[in-house]
Amino acid sequence: MLGLAPRKLHPKVPRFHGEGGKYRLTAAGGLAALSLDALTSVVYGPEAIVLALVAAGVSATSATLPIALVIAGLLGVLVISYRQVIAVHPNGGGSYAVAKEDLGRRTSLLAAASLVVDYILTVAVSLAAGAASLASAFPALGDHLLAVCLTGLAVLTAVNLRGIADSARVLMAPMALFAAGVLAVVVVGLFRSHPVAVVGTAQTFHISEAFGVLLLLKAFSAGCTALTGIEAIANAVPMFREPRVRRAQHTEVLLGVLLATMVLGLVLLIRRHHVVPREGVTIVAQLAAGAFGTGWVYYAFTLITTLALALAANTSFGSLPVLMSLLAKDNRLPHLFSLRAERPVHRFGVVALALVACVLLVAVDAQLHRLLPLFAIGVFVGFTISQIGLVRYWKTRRPDGWVPRVAVSAFGAALTAVAGVVLLTTKFVSGAWFVALVVPLCMLLFSRIEHYYTSVTNALNRRRTLRPPVPVPTTVIVPLGEVDEIAERALTAACSLASDVVVVTAQDEQQKAEAMREKWARWNPGVRLDVISSPEHTLVRPLMAYVERAVGDGKHVAVLIPQVEPQHRRYRVLENQRGLLLAGLLSTRGQVIVCLLPVRVGPADLVSE
Amino acid sequence: MLGLAPRKLHPKVPRFHGEGGKYRLTAAGGLAALSLDALTSVVYGPEAIVLALVAAGVSATSATLPIALVIAGLLGVLVISYRQVIAVHPNGGGSYAVAKEDLGRRTSLLAAASLVVDYILTVAVSLAAGAASLASAFPALGDHLLAVCLTGLAVLTAVNLRGIADSARVLMAPMALFAAGVLAVVVVGLFRSHPVAVVGTAQTFHISEAFGVLLLLKAFSAGCTALTGIEAIANAVPMFREPRVRRAQHTEVLLGVLLATMVLGLVLLIRRHHVVPREGVTIVAQLAAGAFGTGWVYYAFTLITTLALALAANTSFGSLPVLMSLLAKDNRLPHLFSLRAERPVHRFGVVALALVACVLLVAVDAQLHRLLPLFAIGVFVGFTISQIGLVRYWKTRRPDGWVPRVAVSAFGAALTAVAGVVLLTTKFVSGAWFVALVVPLCMLLFSRIEHYYTSVTNALNRRRTLRPPVPVPTTVIVPLGEVDEIAERALTAACSLASDVVVVTAQDEQQKAEAMREKWARWNPGVRLDVISSPEHTLVRPLMAYVERAVGDGKHVAVLIPQVEPQHRRYRVLENQRGLLLAGLLSTRGQVIVCLLPVRVGPADLVSE
Repeated sequence: MLGLAPRKLHPKVPRFHGEGGKYRLTAAGGLAALSLDALTSVVYGPEAIVLALVAAGVSATSATLPIALVIAGLLGVLVISYRQVIAVHPNGGGSYAVAKEDLGRRTSLLAAASLVVDYILTVAVSLAAGAASLASAFPALGDHLLAVCLTGLAVLTAVNLRGIADSARVLMAPMALFAAGVLAVVVVGLFRSHPVAVVGTAQTFHISEAFGVLLLLKAFSAGCTALTGIEAIANAVPMFREPRVRRAQHTEVLLGVLLATMVLGLVLLIRRHHVVPREGVTIVAQLAAGAFGTGWVYYAFTLITTLALALAANTSFGSLPVLMSLLAKDNRLPHLFSLRAERPVHRFGVVALALVACVLLVAVDAQLHRLLPLFAIGVFVGFTISQIGLVRYWKTRRPDGWVPRVAVSAFGAALTAVAGVVLLTTKFVSGAWFVALVVPLCMLLFSRIEHYYTSVTNALNRRRTLRPPVPVPTTVIVPLGEVDEIAERALTAACSLASDVVVVTAQDEQQKAEAMREKWARWNPGVRLDVISSPEHTLVRPLMAYVERAVGDGKHVAVLIPQVEPQHRRYRVLENQRGLLLAGLLSTRGQVIVCLLPVRVGPADLVSE
Repeated sequence: MLGLAPRKLHPKVPRFHGEGGKYRLTAAGGLAALSLDALTSVVYGPEAIVLALVAAGVSATSATLPIALVIAGLLGVLVISYRQVIAVHPNGGGSYAVAKEDLGRRTSLLAAASLVVDYILTVAVSLAAGAASLASAFPALGDHLLAVCLTGLAVLTAVNLRGIADSARVLMAPMALFAAGVLAVVVVGLFRSHPVAVVGTAQTFHISEAFGVLLLLKAFSAGCTALTGIEAIANAVPMFREPRVRRAQHTEVLLGVLLATMVLGLVLLIRRHHVVPREGVTIVAQLAAGAFGTGWVYYAFTLITTLALALAANTSFGSLPVLMSLLAKDNRLPHLFSLRAERPVHRFGVVALALVACVLLVAVDAQLHRLLPLFAIGVFVGFTISQIGLVRYWKTRRPDGWVPRVAVSAFGAALTAVAGVVLLTTKFVSGAWFVALVVPLCMLLFSRIEHYYTSVTNALNRRRTLRPPVPVPTTVIVPLGEVDEIAERALTAACSLASDVVVVTAQDEQQKAEAMREKWARWNPGVRLDVISSPEHTLVRPLMAYVERAVGDGKHVAVLIPQVEPQHRRYRVLENQRGLLLAGLLSTRGQVIVCLLPVRVGPADLVSE
């Protein structure tokens, strides 16, 4: 037709975390690709414990270590339990898949909702923590945390819109550096009798709470934020190299050990150096300064921490689309998202995630301590669900030696359930209420969508037999603004599709209308021209009304809209908007076929005529 | 066809500032509708002067009054000059229209660019000032200015997306209250020997600059921000009730007098009470506290000020679309914007404006003093241009007594030109460079767009004569995912448009493909079915490739895409995305007609079959 080389049809599809390293991850690689979120939570976990305890005075912070030990114990149980999850669900999918398989619809909706909420919170929390750690090194940024966060978010969004190809290799270095850094802080720090340098400005703590069970529970639930992210490995077993299950299990254990070491090490150091929260610096930054002084090592460490946290935030941009595609396949999100490999599609998810995270950050003004109470609850819901699912699984299958396994899972489930309740209750006022509100709303949304899709399918398959197609005479209406080559091609196309063709033009000035009539008469293409005058500055609605009338007369109508297609994509925004507007309005009418005729404009094209 | 009541076709079109009060404004109404931007600038204008002077020590602030007098004089000249602009250009349009008529293409581009930049800055500056004044009453907000600003911006955006119908009446009360408030502060304050109450915390000023001409120039240019917005009346003469010109001129004078009174009054008060900048409060808030104490009157005043500033920010949301439609009519912006009355269209403008303002606010972290240096420059470019235009106008027409008029305009032009240069140079380092960068870029953009449109028009009208349309045999390809009523209707429509119809289906699983074949055979509609298997999770690209091949075989192809149209709009997001995706990709191919067939789904509809 037009002598143009066909456009490239297979643009490089971005590879997501869910696909990036498909069938390629080693244990170490898995740790890099899947654990940043979990590992970086040591930056805010221990700090959260101290912050909670200090409400009962500085002396109360001595309880930090025991609480950390409890949390480490919980971590141990979770790791053991997740090794089983991995073995039982080698196809991954995490708590949502588990719940769907073994626990039924409602529970799976709960799992899905909590996962979505947590992915969003991971972005916000990691960015806020990153900003805080950056501000510890550069106090000038202290007054501009929100700006820093939003800038970081903008960068992440841009990168993910372009499509990221982050294989495990890319993440390996930052992950290793971060872990090494934290461990170095711990080791070096423990050898120091007292901190080399003290950063930040002292705070005065007025005792606002009594030291007691409630406070300890609060501190515990605050510390549980350190456990977020350890489920990621179980969600992504298919990404591992064979033997998948074994590798994934090893990775899970590795993560558990590393995480426990870091948390306990940091807490020991906090105890040894009698560290209390100080204005303008994170506790981890204080520990780093205590270990290395405030030289370049300190700056390097805080920068690495910030980078690691930014990458942790980035994981959600990769993981959420995977979950959304699962949900879409189950009719619980718009089908659109089931095609996450389609180039333009994943962008909606990215932008949506960015917007919600942005609102969250603005709402709490990038204050980490105001975000943390919302965090971790969803994670614990996931923990509990996947372990209950496991119990159900063992009890139904009953293989040899299933009893001890059930015991472990049941114990873990009970533990995490209790922890979850503690989290929800102790943090309810300070923000958990929001999660308790949003999660059910998400569940409602998912089930409404599911209901819609099923009802439509039923409606469409109501009749047993389908009729064979019978052609019906159709009128093609062609809206034109000018008499030019576009008009020529539009009429050619229209006459090729139907014998009954009418051209309509809407003009907001009288002389324009006259000019149009004259030109038309001069061309005389043998097609009727109807001229509508529209006093207001709107051309679309009069055309709509015109089409309405035609439909009202009982005609079968198709509207053919020529669209100028510039040779350079960058010019597309300059064309067709009016046509697309009309097309959009018409399509909602539900009675008119809208035909879009692309007209290439440019020398090459016009020559090839 | 389907027995459904046709949808309402004329949704209430939002009325913009540019149209809201069309042919209805009285002088007072005009003041309310068009001057909030100008009047509210007294909140930051005088403060900017003091802030500039205090760099040379507290004593230097004594120069505030003389500088304010100079600015008042400049204001006088501008008012006189704008009375002439109004008389000469009763159709409004402001500096852009003037430049287009009397000064040629390039100048008009400059005018347009500066106007656009200033509309955006008005939003950011007004919001930042509003946040500052709110924080003066509620110090707790002091650390969250950015959050406050972004919240305000979100509200404005939401309101404007819904479409505002703010007639002058709506704005009258806030405007009057604000003006009355400021004047009350001045009058009451001047009767006090010393401030009743002092708010904010004292600052220490270390002298960073010598007192001299440069400092005075800086202070002057800082104070010129108080003149922003006085051009708005001349831009909107058509909105006035007859006799338009006279009313508009009166309004301009009224504005000038009111503005001058407020500025000078505030400055006198600053002098009398020896007010210097204090931490956490605006100077206007200090004056208010000095006059009324910190009782409820103080809170009422600051709240009114905040409201007025928010409404001032809102004016841009109304004015920018008007300017953009002018530019679009001149081929200097996408034609889309010329139809600002089309319901969905104005939203793009609103969102774009909101986004840019958001970026600006984040970039300066909502610090007013970091935004002001960017402000006012564009305004002065506009001032100068419109007055030079006036000079040109008189010199060409030469009516009786044109000489004095030219004199005034020339004098005004010279003054504002000098002021503009002073502004640009003195503020260059502190931010004006940004404007100096963006304005030329906007000009470039506008002229590129203009060039594109003209080239397209030429390309389309190259051939003298047009051929009459000759039908060509067309193949209709129908992509289907299922064998159901959608398929039935799609085939009916396809066969009505062409005799050669092919159905194609892309399935990512083998058994799905088989099932499809079986159902097809059972239905046997007498149309060929091609099944494509797509291993990846993408269905769109294989279909593209299929269509590609058909086109490659030299066929004239139309692709008919059935779209499910749910009865409730809220469900639309759940359908058709895949189809629209395909349609979008196809349309960029420039060779295929894309036909969208809406299929209503819902009991009513299926019954009416």
